[in-house]
Amino acid sequence: MLTKRLIKYFKSLQLKKYRLQERKFLVEGAKGVTEVLESGFQVSYLLGTQEFLNTLSEKQKSRAKEVIICKPIDLSQAGTFKTNNAGIAVVDMPDDEGVSLSENELSLVLDDVRDPGNLGTIIRIADWYGIKHIYCSLETADVFNPKVINATMGSFTRVSVQYCDIKPLLSSCKMPVYGALLSGESIYKTQLSPNGVVVMGNESKGISDELLPFITNPILIPARGGAESLNVGVATAVVLDNFFRA
Amino acid sequence: MLTKRLIKYFKSLQLKKYRLQERKFLVEGAKGVTEVLESGFQVSYLLGTQEFLNTLSEKQKSRAKEVIICKPIDLSQAGTFKTNNAGIAVVDMPDDEGVSLSENELSLVLDDVRDPGNLGTIIRIADWYGIKHIYCSLETADVFNPKVINATMGSFTRVSVQYCDIKPLLSSCKMPVYGALLSGESIYKTQLSPNGVVVMGNESKGISDELLPFITNPILIPARGGAESLNVGVATAVVLDNFFRA
Repeated sequence: MLTKRLIKYFKSLQLKKYRLQERKFLVEGAKGVTEVLESGFQVSYLLGTQEFLNTLSEKQKSRAKEVIICKPIDLSQAGTFKTNNAGIAVVDMPDDEGVSLSENELSLVLDDVRDPGNLGTIIRIADWYGIKHIYCSLETADVFNPKVINATMGSFTRVSVQYCDIKPLLSSCKMPVYGALLSGESIYKTQLSPNGVVVMGNESKGISDELLPFITNPILIPARGGAESLNVGVATAVVLDNFFRA
Repeated sequence: MLTKRLIKYFKSLQLKKYRLQERKFLVEGAKGVTEVLESGFQVSYLLGTQEFLNTLSEKQKSRAKEVIICKPIDLSQAGTFKTNNAGIAVVDMPDDEGVSLSENELSLVLDDVRDPGNLGTIIRIADWYGIKHIYCSLETADVFNPKVINATMGSFTRVSVQYCDIKPLLSSCKMPVYGALLSGESIYKTQLSPNGVVVMGNESKGISDELLPFITNPILIPARGGAESLNVGVATAVVLDNFFRA
């Protein structure tokens, strides 16, 4: 049964402080909840309308330690969506692993991407292009923020997002380090190696000064019109597309 | 002086009904206001903090029929931003012109893009790639919605956005009509002509059935990972990048 105490518990997970204390986070809406039940994540609670639960297989439902049938109004109360006709899952954070740069693949580094919507969009884009690892500076938005999780549209289940001090990570990197910079070389003319790292910077400040010495390959998306910049999520997609186009 | 009546007038322009009645719209924040003062748009009112007005040239300020110095709190009251330390402009809508498809260039058609943030992002992306014309279906978000204008970061001054019935527009089109479709051909392998039209569809439904017969070149951004889709703004950027990369 969905008690007031439990609703309060769900709501508390909207705050980073309580997420870290409980080591749990929220996933909301049909797409995200269904995907997390198909993933390796541990699910503590599954709240769902009868209609939504009917769309799930027994195997999917059995992935949750506790399943609670509720009404859409309960879901709006417990979560962040104004309307939610499907469900919410409370999911265990994965254990922290030591952070080391993955080789023989292309990975993303985010240097202080602050907006949760941007981080969520970037995770979704990374998943589209088959990127497995994103390394975030400690000032980057929290991946377990509901706004981030929900903006990934389930892609958080397939892309590992880790937080660390970026400087030592890049200083030990033996692969090319690409960085989107206004002083970069046209991405259309740069040799792009699929074994490497792409660094994307903060929404207003770009890549921080202390990381610039580690950028071996500064790249630029050439502008043809009048706009001064592209949103960091949009720029990430265009950069990755240039790496992977046949 | 900023009277209560004037604040009420500014606020009324957040609603489409009053925007259409007055044929005026709001532009908020330093970047957008500065750009609109540099453009061909007629500016009825310029509200600004003394600090922001000091950053403007006499010529820029003279573009506004009336300049009112005010405090940040007045700007929050009159506009949609929670905090605004710069200014707000009330701008005249341009006259409606007959809609006809521009030739010898690449244009965008938006088929029911409903989210104001997405429309604003697409206008900014179009501006980055030098696209001059966007044709929107009548169900697409209103370009003069403050959320759209503000998301364009000033790009609305350089990209013409017109609303019309898309079917007759495409049926008379003699250029290639590209459409982002799941059944499309890889955009990496398609011959992309810079004289043509790119159709982007609704956030959840894609391109509507009634427009499908007019798509001469269905295109697809190949996925390498697990995500089911890309946000329509992100997809627009990747598609345009494929057209214009050298």
